[in-house]
Amino acid sequence: MLPLLEPESDVAACCPPLDERPLSAREAESAARMFKALGDPVRLRLFSLVASHAGGEACVCDISDVGVSQPTVSHHLKKLKEAGLLSSERRGTWVYYRVEPSVLAAMGALLAGAAKTV
Amino acid sequence: MLPLLEPESDVAACCPPLDERPLSAREAESAARMFKALGDPVRLRLFSLVASHAGGEACVCDISDVGVSQPTVSHHLKKLKEAGLLSSERRGTWVYYRVEPSVLAAMGALLAGAAKTV
Repeated sequence: MLPLLEPESDVAACCPPLDERPLSAREAESAARMFKALGDPVRLRLFSLVASHAGGEACVCDISDVGVSQPTVSHHLKKLKEAGLLSSERRGTWVYYRVEPSVLAAMGALLAGAAKTV
Repeated sequence: MLPLLEPESDVAACCPPLDERPLSAREAESAARMFKALGDPVRLRLFSLVASHAGGEACVCDISDVGVSQPTVSHHLKKLKEAGLLSSERRGTWVYYRVEPSVLAAMGALLAGAAKTV
């Protein structure tokens, strides 16, 4: 039976800690996509606004105060979703965004591993 | 008295865990620079080659097998240095690269914090 919902990103399952062995080309593609999504200051601020919001989720109405237009906010939120870093759900008028914990834990583990090597 | 050597990056001192409070514009600039440096598949592979090499350091001669030309490897290593992720030292004929542990620990902590929120 096919699953109804595929996760948008497979980084959680993809990659060993960076100090364990060199990443393959395929693993690097997958992990680099997520790092790239956080590699923009506005996206990173939006991401931290969601992550630090009460309950780990935020409405678009809560996270628009980053000095860019609403369409630009929407564009960046879409990029974060495409990278698998946020999920979203419409409830009534608003769309709510959540941090994807498994993906972040995997990215944190990638880096924490590398930090221990030295 | 001024310090003789400035660290090339200030991310280690810059940023709280992403779930603690929203990043300021300045904090986001600093942290995004490092994520961006890892947001390219070839750079990420080179970085993992250094991080996973015996002793946590590698000679350029050890890390050229990623399917791109030597000038491209040099270009990416320079970018990783500029982002504060690697340091380098010339010893005899070769330049050796090391992972910067404080910066990686700081990045890992940023993400590990965010992963705990949900």
